[in-house]
Amino acid sequence: MSVRLAIDAMGGDHGLTVTVPAALSFLQSHPDAELLLVGRPDEVEGALQSSRQAGGHGSDPALSSRIRVVPASEVIRMDDNPVQALRNRRNSSMRIAIEQVKAGEADACVSAGNTGALMAISRFVLKTLPGIDRPAIATQLPTQKGGFTTMLDLGANVDCEPTHLLQFAIMGSALASVLDGTERPSVGLLNIGEELIKGNDVVKEAARLIRETPLNFVGNVEGNDVYGGKADVVVSDGFVGNVALKTSEGVAQMIGAFLKQELSRSWFTKLGALCVMPALKRFRQRVDHRRYNGACLIGLRGIVLKSHGSADVLAYEAALRRAYDAARNGLLGRIEAAMAAASPAGHAASPPPLS
Amino acid sequence: MSVRLAIDAMGGDHGLTVTVPAALSFLQSHPDAELLLVGRPDEVEGALQSSRQAGGHGSDPALSSRIRVVPASEVIRMDDNPVQALRNRRNSSMRIAIEQVKAGEADACVSAGNTGALMAISRFVLKTLPGIDRPAIATQLPTQKGGFTTMLDLGANVDCEPTHLLQFAIMGSALASVLDGTERPSVGLLNIGEELIKGNDVVKEAARLIRETPLNFVGNVEGNDVYGGKADVVVSDGFVGNVALKTSEGVAQMIGAFLKQELSRSWFTKLGALCVMPALKRFRQRVDHRRYNGACLIGLRGIVLKSHGSADVLAYEAALRRAYDAARNGLLGRIEAAMAAASPAGHAASPPPLS
Repeated sequence: MSVRLAIDAMGGDHGLTVTVPAALSFLQSHPDAELLLVGRPDEVEGALQSSRQAGGHGSDPALSSRIRVVPASEVIRMDDNPVQALRNRRNSSMRIAIEQVKAGEADACVSAGNTGALMAISRFVLKTLPGIDRPAIATQLPTQKGGFTTMLDLGANVDCEPTHLLQFAIMGSALASVLDGTERPSVGLLNIGEELIKGNDVVKEAARLIRETPLNFVGNVEGNDVYGGKADVVVSDGFVGNVALKTSEGVAQMIGAFLKQELSRSWFTKLGALCVMPALKRFRQRVDHRRYNGACLIGLRGIVLKSHGSADVLAYEAALRRAYDAARNGLLGRIEAAMAAASPAGHAASPPPLS
Repeated sequence: MSVRLAIDAMGGDHGLTVTVPAALSFLQSHPDAELLLVGRPDEVEGALQSSRQAGGHGSDPALSSRIRVVPASEVIRMDDNPVQALRNRRNSSMRIAIEQVKAGEADACVSAGNTGALMAISRFVLKTLPGIDRPAIATQLPTQKGGFTTMLDLGANVDCEPTHLLQFAIMGSALASVLDGTERPSVGLLNIGEELIKGNDVVKEAARLIRETPLNFVGNVEGNDVYGGKADVVVSDGFVGNVALKTSEGVAQMIGAFLKQELSRSWFTKLGALCVMPALKRFRQRVDHRRYNGACLIGLRGIVLKSHGSADVLAYEAALRRAYDAARNGLLGRIEAAMAAASPAGHAASPPPLS
């Protein structure tokens, strides 16, 4: 079975200069993948041509046969208002990429464009899955143990009811299953310090609801557990999740800057840094946020992956891989089965086995 | 004017083995400070004696004249229930330390004990300042720019109304003033990504309220701005603040572990690490969380500082310094003046000048 991804080739801060080389590199490593590059045909063809002339992956004719250009005349800008983008940009590369999923032409779509517009258009075009009130944004973060934590929601829903957190738990568990290949990922609910009042009423009620499902619920986890790897899935409302994610980015950036400053303080430390270059390089790779690029807009009747707007080729390719894995391993089927199993009547049902 | 601190000498994971040496070291560097060591007199005297025999700071008779032991027969344990501790441990070192502040015997108190009990007893004994509904927990975090961000609330209040966030903004601004010596610290409200719906209703209304005060309000800030230093004070509810703080700790710990693993992977990298040892040492000092120990229970009619329970001597001394700075620079007076200035009738009032 081949996996077909629709790419919003015009989206993101760098547009075609990132999406096209990333697409070609991705095809090279995924022989069963096919790509729909959605955008202005002459510009997309031009970018493909440039890659071929540069002697990159594009020069391989076997790759070209797995690429199809899908025309779209408009582009949604990063600062466009999501509602305006939804109403007025019906020929945008983003919308047409999403419509490929709706029409069954693609198994998933990827965009580095405006997050608000991507969510609004995806929701309008694809609709939510049965039983899901609100889609969420989920991503995978590295852990100290070497694996990943799947975290959601990261900002789509700022005011959540307990049932929304329950739905996030079900969707997050399904996503962790298909991306990590684990049959019953452990699920934790993000909460606050044990010494203090343990969380608010929404979290307490959500814990009660999740406990009633067949999910592998491990109870409350705290902020430090996200990177500690205490649970495979960490559930929170979108406000808390967004703050946690961005605070993490801030800490990592500060620590990186401090390390760089200290290592470049004098010719002596610079010389020392040369001695540890291989170790520092491996260290940088492990904490490189580009390797973890690609957030899933989850809960829709279709797979939509959001790349960071400023992604480079390496980062964009990571988002393509996540879209591929989600499609290849049947994310939607797993969410639907988990929803059925979590409903009071459906405890006997079990999710389809992982491929 | 001397500054007198009451120390819950028995509190924390390590009790007297940390509090007494930290107290002596602190006295050495603060010639105008006096300390009340609250605890079981024989045990406190024993710990002082040990320090003297070890030839540490305790052997200096000039220091001894600035120490007074205040007897307290009980100890609140880290896992005691806060309500039980409040009701049943009236002779605890924690409670008697707080009562020294109430009685005017001390300008501030410091404890590494149970946070819930410290908050409950402080609130009961000291009461809140006029106009403050709920005390908050505030701390200072390092920024990439080299300064500090004062952040609150860190977990005392999980469900906040806009007026609570307003009060946190006023208190946080006063705290940043006295700890950093800045006259009008900039104040930001923690919110989420610009692409998405900008925050929930509570945050939106809080922004409106803060904008009406004379505070130096810079509007919304995001998670990454906490360590980026975009605002001197970052305000959030206690759930979000606690998650942000603990997530930061988790990221820092993970990055530290990765760096250590890569530098000790082989004899070659270990040799290289030796070459950069001075740089790595300075780096570690800059990111050493012990240097930022000491959270202020703010909004009470008295200054109460909470040290991390597992603090060592260096960390505990940092908490003592914060208590000293808060008392020395008149934290309570500044909060009261700022509250008056923020009330509709009080715009003409201005806070007392910093000493």
